[in-house]
Amino acid sequence: MSNPSAAILVIGDEILSGRTRDSNLHYLSCELTKIGIDLQEARIIPDNATEIIYAVKWLSSKYNYLFTSGGIGPTHDDITADCIAAAFETEINIREDAFKLLESYYLTQNIDFNNSRQRMARIPNGAKLIDNPISVAPGFQLKNVFVMAGVPTIFQSMVQSVIPSLISGKPLLSKSVRISRGEGEIAAALKKIASEHEDVSIGSYPYNDGEKIGTNIVVRGVDRNQLEAVMEKLESKLLWR
Amino acid sequence: MSNPSAAILVIGDEILSGRTRDSNLHYLSCELTKIGIDLQEARIIPDNATEIIYAVKWLSSKYNYLFTSGGIGPTHDDITADCIAAAFETEINIREDAFKLLESYYLTQNIDFNNSRQRMARIPNGAKLIDNPISVAPGFQLKNVFVMAGVPTIFQSMVQSVIPSLISGKPLLSKSVRISRGEGEIAAALKKIASEHEDVSIGSYPYNDGEKIGTNIVVRGVDRNQLEAVMEKLESKLLWR
Repeated sequence: MSNPSAAILVIGDEILSGRTRDSNLHYLSCELTKIGIDLQEARIIPDNATEIIYAVKWLSSKYNYLFTSGGIGPTHDDITADCIAAAFETEINIREDAFKLLESYYLTQNIDFNNSRQRMARIPNGAKLIDNPISVAPGFQLKNVFVMAGVPTIFQSMVQSVIPSLISGKPLLSKSVRISRGEGEIAAALKKIASEHEDVSIGSYPYNDGEKIGTNIVVRGVDRNQLEAVMEKLESKLLWR
Repeated sequence: MSNPSAAILVIGDEILSGRTRDSNLHYLSCELTKIGIDLQEARIIPDNATEIIYAVKWLSSKYNYLFTSGGIGPTHDDITADCIAAAFETEINIREDAFKLLESYYLTQNIDFNNSRQRMARIPNGAKLIDNPISVAPGFQLKNVFVMAGVPTIFQSMVQSVIPSLISGKPLLSKSVRISRGEGEIAAALKKIASEHEDVSIGSYPYNDGEKIGTNIVVRGVDRNQLEAVMEKLESKLLWR
């Protein structure tokens, strides 16, 4: 059986304009790889309702899991929760448990729990809250979609809190070898080895560190024996000692 | 008239598995912002022909420009050129000018110009070559799609060589102000200002540097006067001096 599949949808004008460099995609990819869930697609789109709804529908029906990042704060450009509700044709209302969490947090902080902050308690019907140990305003899970904050520290803590609930697969193992020969020189041998081991993915990444050129070869798969067989072939055919 | 639109398609298993952190998206977003082309979507997909062909068709018909990164080297996982040809239903063959460029480069380097390296001269019919001052193997432009290498230094030099040929728009200007109040406190005022200036995008990004929390507000638009009007409102309504 193959591993569960996943996609991430990063929502926010600031990534596409270059103001902010996204780090959530990289974080999620590493965490999912560890537990054997294959991240198969990432999309980054602006704070635009039509685009968000379209992407959520598409990605949540194509992959086992969809993770979203961004757009769940208190301001006018935070429209993700409404778009998720629209994508699944469900209602969205202030939810009592989320409201109480936020209310008591702002009370202890001596901060006014105003209308804008109350908006963060609006959760699509049928969703399950995702804990936010940092700034309390929760994320949520609706069907196979996990809706999380864009702020990296909060995103990361939300990912950690949902990971135990995911169906995991076989962790993707990887081994690599650095070969001081150009990609073009080893391509034919690589291709042959790749065709003999179709369950293993063999990636080749050229490097150029000043004067020397060469290739890093990364072998990935879920079966340790296959991986080792490929590594042996690579070392016997491509390494000059 | 609105600015031209663009998308980037990053192709490569290594980004989705977390092995490599993409930097091409961030580089391109900054360069396009400078010349008034709106990057409206980014996708990252694996080295999979079906996915590449689908995404190229979709993104090239939706946006004015599509930029791709990755998959044009000499190895078995470099399938981008073939997929571009398939997406546009055109043939792909060894092209003489690309072949000669590569042949003379490898000759001067005293490196065997073998079959794998010759593959890099395979270019879809009707495409225009994109110069590669670093490792010679060219990228290419077919219709509104610019196909470039994944190695960041090469990607960047290719972007610089295609920029003069793009129809540019009004550069996106941006101004920002740091406010030592939480997002939730200023959200209502921000919403009002945003509704009064619909051509300006107002993003708010919370920060938390240890003890202090606050909000960075970033105002973006192509009209300097509008931007300044918004900044004045923000400063008079939200800043405590």
